[in-house]
Amino acid sequence: MNAVGRADRDDVSEFVARVAWSGLAEPGDRVAGALVDALGAVGAWRWLGGSLDAERPLVWGPVEARTGPLPAVQRARLERSVRRWATRWPTVDPERDLDDLSRLGGAVLVPGDPRWPAGIDDLGDERPFCLWVRGEPDLAGAWRRGIALVGSRAATSYGERVAFDLAEGLSARGATVVSGGAYGIDAAAHRGSLAAGGPTSVVLAGGVDRTYPVGNARLFEAVVGGGGSVVAELGPGRLPTRSRFLQRNRLIAAGSRATVVVEAAWRSGAMSSAHHAARLLRPVGAVPGPVTSVASAGCHRLLRDGVAVCVTDAAEVAELAGASGTDLVTERAEAPRAGDGLDAVTRAVLEALPRRAPADLATVASSAGVTTAEARAALGLLELDGSAVRSGGDWSLRAGG
Amino acid sequence: MNAVGRADRDDVSEFVARVAWSGLAEPGDRVAGALVDALGAVGAWRWLGGSLDAERPLVWGPVEARTGPLPAVQRARLERSVRRWATRWPTVDPERDLDDLSRLGGAVLVPGDPRWPAGIDDLGDERPFCLWVRGEPDLAGAWRRGIALVGSRAATSYGERVAFDLAEGLSARGATVVSGGAYGIDAAAHRGSLAAGGPTSVVLAGGVDRTYPVGNARLFEAVVGGGGSVVAELGPGRLPTRSRFLQRNRLIAAGSRATVVVEAAWRSGAMSSAHHAARLLRPVGAVPGPVTSVASAGCHRLLRDGVAVCVTDAAEVAELAGASGTDLVTERAEAPRAGDGLDAVTRAVLEALPRRAPADLATVASSAGVTTAEARAALGLLELDGSAVRSGGDWSLRAGG
Repeated sequence: MNAVGRADRDDVSEFVARVAWSGLAEPGDRVAGALVDALGAVGAWRWLGGSLDAERPLVWGPVEARTGPLPAVQRARLERSVRRWATRWPTVDPERDLDDLSRLGGAVLVPGDPRWPAGIDDLGDERPFCLWVRGEPDLAGAWRRGIALVGSRAATSYGERVAFDLAEGLSARGATVVSGGAYGIDAAAHRGSLAAGGPTSVVLAGGVDRTYPVGNARLFEAVVGGGGSVVAELGPGRLPTRSRFLQRNRLIAAGSRATVVVEAAWRSGAMSSAHHAARLLRPVGAVPGPVTSVASAGCHRLLRDGVAVCVTDAAEVAELAGASGTDLVTERAEAPRAGDGLDAVTRAVLEALPRRAPADLATVASSAGVTTAEARAALGLLELDGSAVRSGGDWSLRAGG
Repeated sequence: MNAVGRADRDDVSEFVARVAWSGLAEPGDRVAGALVDALGAVGAWRWLGGSLDAERPLVWGPVEARTGPLPAVQRARLERSVRRWATRWPTVDPERDLDDLSRLGGAVLVPGDPRWPAGIDDLGDERPFCLWVRGEPDLAGAWRRGIALVGSRAATSYGERVAFDLAEGLSARGATVVSGGAYGIDAAAHRGSLAAGGPTSVVLAGGVDRTYPVGNARLFEAVVGGGGSVVAELGPGRLPTRSRFLQRNRLIAAGSRATVVVEAAWRSGAMSSAHHAARLLRPVGAVPGPVTSVASAGCHRLLRDGVAVCVTDAAEVAELAGASGTDLVTERAEAPRAGDGLDAVTRAVLEALPRRAPADLATVASSAGVTTAEARAALGLLELDGSAVRSGGDWSLRAGG
């Protein structure tokens, strides 16, 4: 029995139909998303099956019963999509994909599953039909505390260190670090999270069995073994392509409470993640770096354009993500300086005290620009704390003061 | 004849009276500023001279004739100020100060002088009474294009390099770099400006003869020799104090079209310059740096707090300062990538082409998720540009493509 037959059976479930749609439409296909939203996955699938005879015009009734009459431009868009889906239709086999996943060990989540991450629904008609997960399948729990750390493959050692430290600090605070599993910033972020013993999620542009890049295979196994997850919206076997990488970034942004770009060139995938997050009204952070480093140029652009907030440590990222209570940024403490805690008059008198030849009260007051009475009171305080030395009626600064 | 006598003569001019006030009141003394604004420098000086007998109550008539009846709290404030001014009064000698300056070579500017920099007037009652200038006295011309580059004395080599490069680029664009002449960022900025042959201004916290720090004496001479200026609001001989450093920063901010902090610790004088500029509604820029560097922590704080805009090169600073035309930032050019300039369908087909075993049209269309007609058209284009190779009816990617 071929794929069409399987998904087209009378007893096909929404679950299987969603898996079928994930094999048919490209990630982010808004026409497919809108059609499934209007008719349900099964209804849309059946309507498509009945529309694949290129000799016949499309049957608009079932669609327009939900959407109302479609303008010509939208009908034309749907017709073009149907012709595109038709070329891939014969290859779709949801049950084969599910079999492949069960051999790998994993779960498929669809909307309505309590483990489905709610943030993803903000994608509207760009929402994935399902999510394929290896490792911990409860993305609802994990991504509720999700923070995306993304950045360039061509990262510097500075960027990788910052990504590692941020991820470690965020995981220690209970966050789930979400990233794309690429070399560079992504891998450093996953590693930092693992170092803190925290779960982390790798979101891939191809299938969950497609270890991309292959050099990170061990890292992905460590992620799965460490209570984290490897996630994709495409079934096993699918290859990553350029457009799938860009669409993958929308999942990372939507699945996380905030997205932080650690290093990014002027034009890069991490920039697309930041813009996806901004479009979804999620907080965006950017880590600054040397202006002499092209690896930070994208971060600085995000800061200049007002897309991102400047973040420099895990506490600031936690604040960005809206964590409350203990996660709030605390003011940095600095070593107190001489003169700290003195009022302006006393400080002026302290600064006016001569280091060598002692001066009388009027001279000190004049030099400090205060009244004689103010100078007298200030000198009393400064004598008490050892800063001022009296010799007869004259005053000077304590040696070494 | 003592100072009081000189400044108190009937024929004393506003010019000399302003010089006298600059020797009496501390920089930023708002009470003195308001008094001089109300009565004129000569009128305020005479009123003060008549008020210095501590045995008599102050004579409010001449003041209140200008200000209207003063509330008790303002009368008390003015009384306290008079008692403070009284301690320094006997030391004030404007003609001695002017003599000292003429021995150094220099000019004193007061409001109304065509060389007086207009931006300074935005300081209101914190406006200096006069400006002491060594070198080129036309601050109106120089500071109209003034851009303040400020930062820590404890700068890193990164920060000094960036300050030098920014100053060089800004001077090449015709800007006047204004800074404080300190070690670190300030000195690097002045040097970068000199390297571009541009005039630069050193604004000091003490008198213009007080080379502070002494290690920058040669730099200051080069500034004066290079058509720039050394500027102060205090007369010759006055020493810099902590409060004078902070007040000096308001002059740098007010005298420039924009203020850029290159490196600054969490708490530093450069931060005070930035806040002065923000208070005056002048644009503020901050140069980012490594988050691991405490020398950049203040810059990142300004970015986080929304006080400053992120700037990374001279063109961005010029844009910040509102320079128009050729100074506008140009979009950075990046090397084009494979697939750039292709529409989404053609790119999808390009990515779907097999590298090894050629595939037929239907397979390529299915893999790309496009219609057969779209795939045929795209393959035609890709064959023309050499990306796709046809073998019989099948297609593959050109080897090395």
